[in-house]
Amino acid sequence: MGLGFSDLRQRDAREVRDAIRCGSYTRHTAGLAEGKLQANLVILREDEALDFMRFCQRNPKPCPLVGVTDTGDPYFRTLGQDIDVRRDIPSYNIYRDGQMTEQRTDIAEFWQDDMVAFALGCSFTFENALEREGIPVWHIQNDTTVPMFLSNIPLVSAGPFGGEMVVSMRAIAKDRVEDAIRISAQFPHAHGAPVHVGDPVAIGISDAARPDWGDPAPVGEGEVPVFWACGVTPQAAVMRAKLPFVITHTPGHMLISDVPEDAETPVLLPD
Amino acid sequence: MGLGFSDLRQRDAREVRDAIRCGSYTRHTAGLAEGKLQANLVILREDEALDFMRFCQRNPKPCPLVGVTDTGDPYFRTLGQDIDVRRDIPSYNIYRDGQMTEQRTDIAEFWQDDMVAFALGCSFTFENALEREGIPVWHIQNDTTVPMFLSNIPLVSAGPFGGEMVVSMRAIAKDRVEDAIRISAQFPHAHGAPVHVGDPVAIGISDAARPDWGDPAPVGEGEVPVFWACGVTPQAAVMRAKLPFVITHTPGHMLISDVPEDAETPVLLPD
Repeated sequence: MGLGFSDLRQRDAREVRDAIRCGSYTRHTAGLAEGKLQANLVILREDEALDFMRFCQRNPKPCPLVGVTDTGDPYFRTLGQDIDVRRDIPSYNIYRDGQMTEQRTDIAEFWQDDMVAFALGCSFTFENALEREGIPVWHIQNDTTVPMFLSNIPLVSAGPFGGEMVVSMRAIAKDRVEDAIRISAQFPHAHGAPVHVGDPVAIGISDAARPDWGDPAPVGEGEVPVFWACGVTPQAAVMRAKLPFVITHTPGHMLISDVPEDAETPVLLPD
Repeated sequence: MGLGFSDLRQRDAREVRDAIRCGSYTRHTAGLAEGKLQANLVILREDEALDFMRFCQRNPKPCPLVGVTDTGDPYFRTLGQDIDVRRDIPSYNIYRDGQMTEQRTDIAEFWQDDMVAFALGCSFTFENALEREGIPVWHIQNDTTVPMFLSNIPLVSAGPFGGEMVVSMRAIAKDRVEDAIRISAQFPHAHGAPVHVGDPVAIGISDAARPDWGDPAPVGEGEVPVFWACGVTPQAAVMRAKLPFVITHTPGHMLISDVPEDAETPVLLPD
């Protein structure tokens, strides 16, 4: 018998991770452990890790690196206490040769001594800030997944990683666009300011009503589509690179850290 | 016959790098190519590069990574046009087994196919901003080098890299300390906000008049010593790790990029 969202709404980050670790919570993490940085997850072989870190350094808006493990060490030691990358994420995607082959709620059996795990900041951080400042986010209010699109914005390549940026779209009232830019720019570890405001065609999106990932969301009268760099970008790059074996989180099912989401740096010193 | 500072004061970044490349300018770069991000340099073997990137990710205040080359490629392609790490820095330090053995103005003869170069943001960026907002910086006004100290602030280790943080000290008038914090916090790629304000003993500095690197600077009546994370930290970590062969810039003699120092991300897309 699993726990629901409402059971965990008031729990702190550690308590939520405990529920995830023991398998009693396997759903998405939006709105949980309020005020704590949540993160995308990518697990690779060490042979691919240097190029992946270069890829993140060169594309910091879609891939804001907030944590990296030692090779073979399954703990994110700078993101909080006892964060086990094998069990503390509600759902994982397993990719083989660029194809998603299965989803799991625990990857302990797949963890190897030559693996490196990466945590990358996610949009929950700035979405929380937008809502706090009175800018509604349609997909949150309607309990759907943010619409995401493969744009034509080129990424800077590193080794096998490259391609185009995945972006997420939020419709913002015309008179709040400047505020949305200012607010999100305050979170460089969570994609920062938008990468495009206005006409979707300008960044290679032919039909904004048909996202490549997630659910459609309307752009209402008096609203402007605003596009942010998206944390699905590294998953798309990993698929494009056709690596033999990669593990990621399942979109929306994030790693919950102990780092405050407004921290200057995403690093908690170990005790 | 070399060029002096005044000959280059009004030149843009590319022109300054050209003068450095052809060997006609070999002095420090403070105040040159105003408005452009300058950077510390570390060159390592690829075998050591993944741990060094982890070290930078875990210690972003002393080691704000702003660029990394492909293995064997001597160009920082995301920091500007035609930036050659072998020739475009005015002076290099060569370390063997943890000891500085020589200084050079060109390292083309040492560059190897398994080398990786790293650029890390530097304090010139926030010092320029402090002076623009009317907060004088004593060592700039007196043409000396900022005082630097080995603190007792622990770094987060990665592989062979660890130890304690090197900090730089600037005396700030009591009524401008809050401004200095706010201003420098705007530049996360240039060490960000101070790591300590006030009593030097609290961070393991027994005599603030005797810096470990650089020149002494007074703390006047009505002033407070303010300490920032310092880009000499990675050089100290590299020495401590006793790597067989490492090249860095000579302190003060920085890489001048084409990236605006207030850019949201330190990345210029290649043409």
